[in-house]
Amino acid sequence: MPRRNKNSATLLIHCPDAKGIVAQVTGFINDNNGNIITLDEHVDRLDKVFYMRVEWELDGFLIPQEKIADFFGTLIATRYSMIWKIYFSDQRPRMAIFVSKLSHCLYDILSRFHAGEWDVDIPLIIGNHRDLEQVAGQFGIPFHCFEKNDENRLQQEARELDLLTQQQVSFVVLARYMQILSSGFIRKYPNEIINIHHSFLPAFPGAKPYHSAYERGVKIIGATSHYVTSELDAGPIIDQDIVRVSHRDSIDKLIMKGKDVEKLVLSRAILMHLQRRTLVYNNRTVVFNQ
Amino acid sequence: MPRRNKNSATLLIHCPDAKGIVAQVTGFINDNNGNIITLDEHVDRLDKVFYMRVEWELDGFLIPQEKIADFFGTLIATRYSMIWKIYFSDQRPRMAIFVSKLSHCLYDILSRFHAGEWDVDIPLIIGNHRDLEQVAGQFGIPFHCFEKNDENRLQQEARELDLLTQQQVSFVVLARYMQILSSGFIRKYPNEIINIHHSFLPAFPGAKPYHSAYERGVKIIGATSHYVTSELDAGPIIDQDIVRVSHRDSIDKLIMKGKDVEKLVLSRAILMHLQRRTLVYNNRTVVFNQ
Amino acid sequence: MPRRNKNSATLLIHCPDAKGIVAQVTGFINDNNGNIITLDEHVDRLDKVFYMRVEWELDGFLIPQEKIADFFGTLIATRYSMIWKIYFSDQRPRMAIFVSKLSHCLYDILSRFHAGEWDVDIPLIIGNHRDLEQVAGQFGIPFHCFEKNDENRLQQEARELDLLTQQQVSFVVLARYMQILSSGFIRKYPNEIINIHHSFLPAFPGAKPYHSAYERGVKIIGATSHYVTSELDAGPIIDQDIVRVSHRDSIDKLIMKGKDVEKLVLSRAILMHLQRRTLVYNNRTVVFNQ
Amino acid sequence: MPRRNKNSATLLIHCPDAKGIVAQVTGFINDNNGNIITLDEHVDRLDKVFYMRVEWELDGFLIPQEKIADFFGTLIATRYSMIWKIYFSDQRPRMAIFVSKLSHCLYDILSRFHAGEWDVDIPLIIGNHRDLEQVAGQFGIPFHCFEKNDENRLQQEARELDLLTQQQVSFVVLARYMQILSSGFIRKYPNEIINIHHSFLPAFPGAKPYHSAYERGVKIIGATSHYVTSELDAGPIIDQDIVRVSHRDSIDKLIMKGKDVEKLVLSRAILMHLQRRTLVYNNRTVVFNQ
Repeated sequence: MPRRNKNSATLLIHCPDAKGIVAQVTGFINDNNGNIITLDEHVDRLDKVFYMRVEWELDGFLIPQEKIADFFGTLIATRYSMIWKIYFSDQRPRMAIFVSKLSHCLYDILSRFHAGEWDVDIPLIIGNHRDLEQVAGQFGIPFHCFEKNDENRLQQEARELDLLTQQQVSFVVLARYMQILSSGFIRKYPNEIINIHHSFLPAFPGAKPYHSAYERGVKIIGATSHYVTSELDAGPIIDQDIVRVSHRDSIDKLIMKGKDVEKLVLSRAILMHLQRRTLVYNNRTVVFNQ
Repeated sequence: MPRRNKNSATLLIHCPDAKGIVAQVTGFINDNNGNIITLDEHVDRLDKVFYMRVEWELDGFLIPQEKIADFFGTLIATRYSMIWKIYFSDQRPRMAIFVSKLSHCLYDILSRFHAGEWDVDIPLIIGNHRDLEQVAGQFGIPFHCFEKNDENRLQQEARELDLLTQQQVSFVVLARYMQILSSGFIRKYPNEIINIHHSFLPAFPGAKPYHSAYERGVKIIGATSHYVTSELDAGPIIDQDIVRVSHRDSIDKLIMKGKDVEKLVLSRAILMHLQRRTLVYNNRTVVFNQ
Repeated sequence: MPRRNKNSATLLIHCPDAKGIVAQVTGFINDNNGNIITLDEHVDRLDKVFYMRVEWELDGFLIPQEKIADFFGTLIATRYSMIWKIYFSDQRPRMAIFVSKLSHCLYDILSRFHAGEWDVDIPLIIGNHRDLEQVAGQFGIPFHCFEKNDENRLQQEARELDLLTQQQVSFVVLARYMQILSSGFIRKYPNEIINIHHSFLPAFPGAKPYHSAYERGVKIIGATSHYVTSELDAGPIIDQDIVRVSHRDSIDKLIMKGKDVEKLVLSRAILMHLQRRTLVYNNRTVVFNQ
Repeated sequence: MPRRNKNSATLLIHCPDAKGIVAQVTGFINDNNGNIITLDEHVDRLDKVFYMRVEWELDGFLIPQEKIADFFGTLIATRYSMIWKIYFSDQRPRMAIFVSKLSHCLYDILSRFHAGEWDVDIPLIIGNHRDLEQVAGQFGIPFHCFEKNDENRLQQEARELDLLTQQQVSFVVLARYMQILSSGFIRKYPNEIINIHHSFLPAFPGAKPYHSAYERGVKIIGATSHYVTSELDAGPIIDQDIVRVSHRDSIDKLIMKGKDVEKLVLSRAILMHLQRRTLVYNNRTVVFNQ
């Protein structure tokens, strides 16, 4: 991702479909001397919902950055009952990574971070075991361990949430974090917790999908990145991919082949999220072009 | 598939794993002056089962074709408690196609048949509606219509089975045949009825998988060819493939994109079956190289 | 493709990038009471070119259909030095198919046509051999044979062009038509002749790509659909796809596996062309969302 | 890759095709009480060459490990003019990695190594720049820097070769090493130097393939792992893969998307090489099943 030279604003919108929304929104930007970098829209004709993402350069824009939200909200958004968010490229998102014992997704993330591929800060990594503390250390990122069991889960989550708040974390990535988060935790980060599930959902939800895949004799396995909701493995899907397998692949080989898909599908989801390209509605995602 | 010039025999074997099976089988062929064309084997280490496919030229083979089964059975197979079958390339399989109203799979099959891609005879096409009678007619293949409802299903199946027997049909292809066959029918053609299901099983079994895929917001859809067993959409999988979709794809578009995968996955399964490359064990398929 | 109920207009535009184009174009549509169905735009930042496709419902649009081009040209297009085209959904494109001896692409096209997947008319099929006359006959489409050699090529092309003009053909599909068209012919249908080449271009241009692929020992083969230009196999690419192969695949098997990719890649290109989703600039295509 | 519990031998063979080779080789193993773990063979019918890979457990094998090569050579190999190699699973291969400035392939390799996925030792990493010294340090692997220019290239290579010999390196991986090795260097490691090229060869050989891909307007990009020969980017291909791109992808984005394919295709090639599944003949690879 080439570092942007100029500051830009990105609007994500959804609202009941109506005539003239694109003209109104682009008019608002154009009238105030904004230069549109990219625009993508979608109309769900079944549910009659309009979705839009538009990014424009702030250089020369007549409305000051801190007032854009107020002006857009008043002049345009209320008129169409929009649900909307605005992001500015000079505000880097802060990502927390949750891990357990498997390192492949974590290494994939940290090697991209290290290479400067992503516009993100990673203030901390949280593990429910100490296994990956050393990996965090390789990249100089603080590691915190919160072991959890049925009794202490909510207390430990409270401590985690404190840490996330204190570190101003904007979203959370579960990089093969093999433990369930409580509904309370999830509600604090709605559509801001990304999980990687090691199957092409809705096939094989829950634990041990590779064992189930072997048992069923499938010829493809896959991975699914999704936003976490309170229902297990049922949140809005961000990305999926697959790899071909055969009768030759033992469960161990399925696990090995699956790792490659898992790490790519998770990293692609993180990138889409960082680029503000995802919008959730009705438990589905719209993934805009960039 | 290039037409083979010489007659060949193909053995498909599975049995409890043991030392020396490959040496014994290849010794049997070699000692009788057979030239092995291709050999593939697999050992399932979990279940301790040995699988093998071997094809050899019959030209110059010292055992007459009609006695090979007897000799192999007596000399080798019983020693290892093999379940086995032998096929000869000069015996063309005879395929019946069952259809309903959708033509894409049928056209894909018939265009390959017409181009001489497959070593197969197609003595008849059976429909539960008359919609595709005209397509069968384009290719000069007899079409029989057996409309079915809850009351007449078994009688109609009996008539279909009579026809299949009379036409010496060796296997059946359900080319988007949208009706369930009875257990009795299925038992007559064990692992000889190939179905195409319009999802990547085990996701979305049953009716209307594209509607379910849309509802769930998946980013890939797929198709699965499998042998039919009495449990719906749960038979041994032969092949699967997928296609990427997005939020932009309405249910109609999913159906359209899915058709392309369905027809290819079904035709690939038919080819593997024709080439005697599939072996079913424990509700899974071994698909041998060729 | 679901049949549209309402008549719509589709604008394809490219021009030097400038501020405010989206706002101007959507304003033009909105001010005249048009309802935008879909909009996609792209800015090539390297060459500073703006591309856009917008489709809107004509029902209730205040400018009469026959005057839209004039009004848009005068009010908007000239201001931005746009190269643009407008299409109306009530004007079905007319497609001619050129074939030689291989039937797989032709069958794939005709089976979609027969199933009503595409909004297109096919007034004629032209062959340089008679091999596929019977296939055309199966679907009731007139077949014309123009055998060509080095001497009569231009005369035969003149007769072909007469026929195309007479039949008001809007675009031409070369469905494995194994002969080169003259520059003169190509100039009559700029970016309106779609070819399928049986390799992932720019690898293996020219004749016998599967032989070259075998020789080189590649592990993937592919197919490329592209608009025909006077330079052989060098025109703007519309779509490409691949299939995995191995050392096991003889040249015959590569050809067989390649056929499946060829027909899908060609049919997808035709669909994109029919939906007015392709725009050519600088020997590259922009393929818009729909 | 599950750690094998028992020691095994793997034979790789190619020779002129003849009757009875499989029977002879499996007879040799079986007669000496070896238990075949896996066997794969291939006959190139065009060139009439026979290829085979067979792996068997050494536990209980009657010929002592150090004499197997002698016995097999004398009793079997000479009879069929075989070119062959034998490997033992208790002899871990030793891999050297050559790098320049890009870290994605190196991290992918080292994260697998760290997770214990591969049966390999990595005694050293060699760079022509110091950029990745720190990454080597993260994993505790010695890093050596040999900067090269047109004048000192051969001397530097001599020092590298000394180091490889001293460290008993069995094969070399060029993990986006952006410099050409001399023929002399390559001759020391025939079919033992694996390179990753950032295009689907034979498309876009040489430098800057992503720029060429952008220029040509392709809709897929890819990566190719191959054994290095003295002809640039023309060595035997081990594996290839691709990723879809669009007009939206700038050169920077092509480079970014390409990285993911590069690292996977290189790591898959390394795994195949480690598992002794590749055999080179006639500038092509046979890649056996495992």
